[in-house]
Amino acid sequence: MNSGDTAWVLIATGLVLMMTLPGLMLFYGGAVRSKNVLSVAMQCFAITGLVTVLWVLYGYSLAFSGTGLLLGDIARLGLQGIRADGLSGTLPEPLFVLFQGTFAIITCALIVGAITERARFSALLVFVSLWFTLVYLPVCHWVWGDGGWLGQLGMLDFAGGTVVHINAGVAALVYCIAIGPRSGYPQTPMRPNNLNYTLIGAALLWVGWFGFNGGSSLAADGTAAMGILVTQIAAAAAALSWMGCEWLCHGKPTAFGIASGAIAGLVAITPACGFVGPMGALCIGIVAAGSCYWVSVVLKRRLGYDDSLDVFGVHAVGGAVGALLSGVFAAPFLGGTGFGEGISGIGGQVLVQATGVTAIILYGALLGSLCLWLTTRLCGGLRVTAEQEIEGLDIVLHDERGYNL
Amino acid sequence: MNSGDTAWVLIATGLVLMMTLPGLMLFYGGAVRSKNVLSVAMQCFAITGLVTVLWVLYGYSLAFSGTGLLLGDIARLGLQGIRADGLSGTLPEPLFVLFQGTFAIITCALIVGAITERARFSALLVFVSLWFTLVYLPVCHWVWGDGGWLGQLGMLDFAGGTVVHINAGVAALVYCIAIGPRSGYPQTPMRPNNLNYTLIGAALLWVGWFGFNGGSSLAADGTAAMGILVTQIAAAAAALSWMGCEWLCHGKPTAFGIASGAIAGLVAITPACGFVGPMGALCIGIVAAGSCYWVSVVLKRRLGYDDSLDVFGVHAVGGAVGALLSGVFAAPFLGGTGFGEGISGIGGQVLVQATGVTAIILYGALLGSLCLWLTTRLCGGLRVTAEQEIEGLDIVLHDERGYNL
Amino acid sequence: MNSGDTAWVLIATGLVLMMTLPGLMLFYGGAVRSKNVLSVAMQCFAITGLVTVLWVLYGYSLAFSGTGLLLGDIARLGLQGIRADGLSGTLPEPLFVLFQGTFAIITCALIVGAITERARFSALLVFVSLWFTLVYLPVCHWVWGDGGWLGQLGMLDFAGGTVVHINAGVAALVYCIAIGPRSGYPQTPMRPNNLNYTLIGAALLWVGWFGFNGGSSLAADGTAAMGILVTQIAAAAAALSWMGCEWLCHGKPTAFGIASGAIAGLVAITPACGFVGPMGALCIGIVAAGSCYWVSVVLKRRLGYDDSLDVFGVHAVGGAVGALLSGVFAAPFLGGTGFGEGISGIGGQVLVQATGVTAIILYGALLGSLCLWLTTRLCGGLRVTAEQEIEGLDIVLHDERGYNL
Repeated sequence: MNSGDTAWVLIATGLVLMMTLPGLMLFYGGAVRSKNVLSVAMQCFAITGLVTVLWVLYGYSLAFSGTGLLLGDIARLGLQGIRADGLSGTLPEPLFVLFQGTFAIITCALIVGAITERARFSALLVFVSLWFTLVYLPVCHWVWGDGGWLGQLGMLDFAGGTVVHINAGVAALVYCIAIGPRSGYPQTPMRPNNLNYTLIGAALLWVGWFGFNGGSSLAADGTAAMGILVTQIAAAAAALSWMGCEWLCHGKPTAFGIASGAIAGLVAITPACGFVGPMGALCIGIVAAGSCYWVSVVLKRRLGYDDSLDVFGVHAVGGAVGALLSGVFAAPFLGGTGFGEGISGIGGQVLVQATGVTAIILYGALLGSLCLWLTTRLCGGLRVTAEQEIEGLDIVLHDERGYNL
Repeated sequence: MNSGDTAWVLIATGLVLMMTLPGLMLFYGGAVRSKNVLSVAMQCFAITGLVTVLWVLYGYSLAFSGTGLLLGDIARLGLQGIRADGLSGTLPEPLFVLFQGTFAIITCALIVGAITERARFSALLVFVSLWFTLVYLPVCHWVWGDGGWLGQLGMLDFAGGTVVHINAGVAALVYCIAIGPRSGYPQTPMRPNNLNYTLIGAALLWVGWFGFNGGSSLAADGTAAMGILVTQIAAAAAALSWMGCEWLCHGKPTAFGIASGAIAGLVAITPACGFVGPMGALCIGIVAAGSCYWVSVVLKRRLGYDDSLDVFGVHAVGGAVGALLSGVFAAPFLGGTGFGEGISGIGGQVLVQATGVTAIILYGALLGSLCLWLTTRLCGGLRVTAEQEIEGLDIVLHDERGYNL
Repeated sequence: MNSGDTAWVLIATGLVLMMTLPGLMLFYGGAVRSKNVLSVAMQCFAITGLVTVLWVLYGYSLAFSGTGLLLGDIARLGLQGIRADGLSGTLPEPLFVLFQGTFAIITCALIVGAITERARFSALLVFVSLWFTLVYLPVCHWVWGDGGWLGQLGMLDFAGGTVVHINAGVAALVYCIAIGPRSGYPQTPMRPNNLNYTLIGAALLWVGWFGFNGGSSLAADGTAAMGILVTQIAAAAAALSWMGCEWLCHGKPTAFGIASGAIAGLVAITPACGFVGPMGALCIGIVAAGSCYWVSVVLKRRLGYDDSLDVFGVHAVGGAVGALLSGVFAAPFLGGTGFGEGISGIGGQVLVQATGVTAIILYGALLGSLCLWLTTRLCGGLRVTAEQEIEGLDIVLHDERGYNL
């Protein structure tokens, strides 16, 4: 065991958890109408609890135990055999268990942003349980588990651009299409109750992402260091780029825009952050901001789906941009650290990346739809009634109001 | 000195401080009426300053210097002899001083939750100074100081279930009984001004607790790793359990409930987190949520005391549940790491735990009452006038309003 | 490479970034009127993005590459040659790059507090770009760069009392004088929209400062440990002292006051924290609180400038007090670690400190004024129109409102 590596991953685990809990709760909570602010934070909070328990009961085992091509095994059910003195590489094994668990938590919590202000709480918890089991665990194993087929193929995903962000973004898209738009969308303006929450949330996510991207090195080393440096660069470049897009297209830079831009950059650098250099990160941030801006602001309006807080537009698109560009900027002559095992050039690496991205999108769309169908059958519906939606989820579902000023 | 251990405890110290300051300020601040929101945050902030200074002047010395059965000595008054190159085990000594100091701070700040919306600020600061000196320092020495009698007895308290939580909860109970209920309690509804603050605060506390429970290993090792894993499990299980209790008994799960549940789980795993395994943590979380729910929601109403934010119901009860169950789940055949020195079975360990819990409750109730009596004599009263209470503490005591929207 | 040192500086970097982003956004954001709350957070957020990109493009190179007396060189332009396996002392070089970059970010963001509620966003970004280049980079090199003249002289500045705080405070003063007071100042009361934000922000800054002051040791060692211990002590002492001043002079302790006091203490211990002991820190905190209180509350009113959130009064004054007292309390017989190289007594050290402080103030005032003149020429003005100021910057500049409750 290396105590320096352990120290860093201990705190990285805390940072990733900080993203899901205060970070996402503020980011999402501030962006909805005031009658729904608590419901969003409750969803993130309850998912954190639920996924933690499922991860302990069977998730970790199915994702990380064994060497299957498609799924792990059941040797670690209920975390049996995980002991304080067990090791996973240079780390204590319980730490590896929890660090990976926080990725599962945040992936599931991210989905919430697409279906705010209309989802039934109970149905959401059922969906998350199903989706975690049928989509998250296999895809996680494919990419990061021993013997997983995408890892074997040489796909690069350092900290979850595919496993976390494409995965969550695709689930968000099918969920928001299945549940339908908020009543009144898009004609009625739906004013964010507290954009300052959203900015603060974005700021906490930004810092928390250091745990995500630097922690994925599983060591306190140069890779972790370069990981947080390129994370910072991509976030900064994307925040400025999105601000620039808005300033040009809309006339004024907005708080929601700069926050979304930063997140787009953070998402896109996630798969790349162990493989690219500073200039690669700058390019990835700029391209991600442009792409995510176009999908979230232009394309979404044209297609008419109500992905309320742009989970698909930012996370799936940013994740895909990052995963594909990882194949480019990993090239040593572009400042990168080199390609996956057995791959010799940009073309080959990009092809592998595209294969993985496509597979995960297709699998997620298909199985995500199945989970939604099952949830509908089990719960009798995904959304609250029209009257309840008008009254607001805070009072209807939780018997509380967000503000009593 | 081990740099990895030092790195972890440096940040763990920051995490514990983050609990007291933004964490508790948000958790407590959001849960009171809007006319008192600043007063609560001010109380936490001022206590942080006050206890830091007292800790430096004499607290550390009386708690951790020397080998007395009941109290330390005065060799470290004013932190004399604490130098950057001094060692405490594998850690620099100034770090040990500060890490332990943050426990004293949060213990004193926790008490605030019981007496919100009616306490005189000056009397609170006097009470805290007395209680810190007469209760916190001795109890801390009994459990963690060299030669302290409860430590000698083999009592297990890894991160402060007894020293921090039972201690704070008992002080809270005697304080809120002595000061009396808020005027209008319990007939008048007293709406929390901002439950989103409370949820965010709970989230920050959750993350900060990793510093508490993982940091108490005083090393970046497997014990710290298992410590934060079981912390996460207990918090998650308790949050879900409390939510379930509410859903069953009240019809709807509330934000305040899920937040309280998480804290109950975090409190209960605190004494246990260096000794139990994942399944033990799951059980502790579930039992703690049920017990704390019953005391905070059912018993408190019957008995009629106004522990405004359930410091006794969550911290004393959760701490006692955790301390007693530590004696059970430390058993190696239940996944634990074994009993205290010289103790050979669950029965023996539970007996020792019960002895410690009882002693700390009795001592805290007795000396806490003495501190309140002294405070009343010194300050002429514990609470503001009825008119001031109606006007609100923010404007009356601090000449400010929390919100000017 | 030492993994423990790396682990600590990795997280210290995150902590410093946490100061700028959520910390400063909340502290400053809460203290302005509700019509300007987003504009302040936007300014901090955009500056974080902008300074990151400039740091990468040329900032790091000009500040830290080469051995010039006045400025670095261009060998690291665009971070060329920075690789994951490169070293800077015991740390990976990319980590050193980013850790130092966060200091540049926060310094620029601090300035915002002086010119809230009236600055044009575009002009601010232009000013920051110029000031970063012409003031921050040279001064940073003078003090911390290899061969920098103030470092050579033996000036002590452990974590940025001069580079960060005096620098930002002087820029703030010239900027707020050039831009003029808020319309209505000082007759009209300008109520902070949310002092709870300010308290929470101060709390996050406090914790984040551990990264600043402990991280500047660039190692997880006794110096870092003593660094965070004295940071805690100075902050606590200063918070209590400012509270005491207010209680005496004004009759009631305020939330804004205790928060300002804590920041004053944190600022003042910044240059000193690697050189002084616990009792030195206590004295520095008390003196800093008194001095900053006097300048911010008494002197500012007399002179009539509108440094809205007391950046000069707290950061420049606190930084100067800390820098000068570092020369006193570094004395070994006062518990310090000794003087700069070639300096043998308090008198000599204080003289060197005073030289550095004076040079930085003069240079900053002169070049800062030049930057303002250039900005005015480039942008056609520093502030919004009187009508826009009345309407509020959130809606005028960003087309959003902070609260829709």
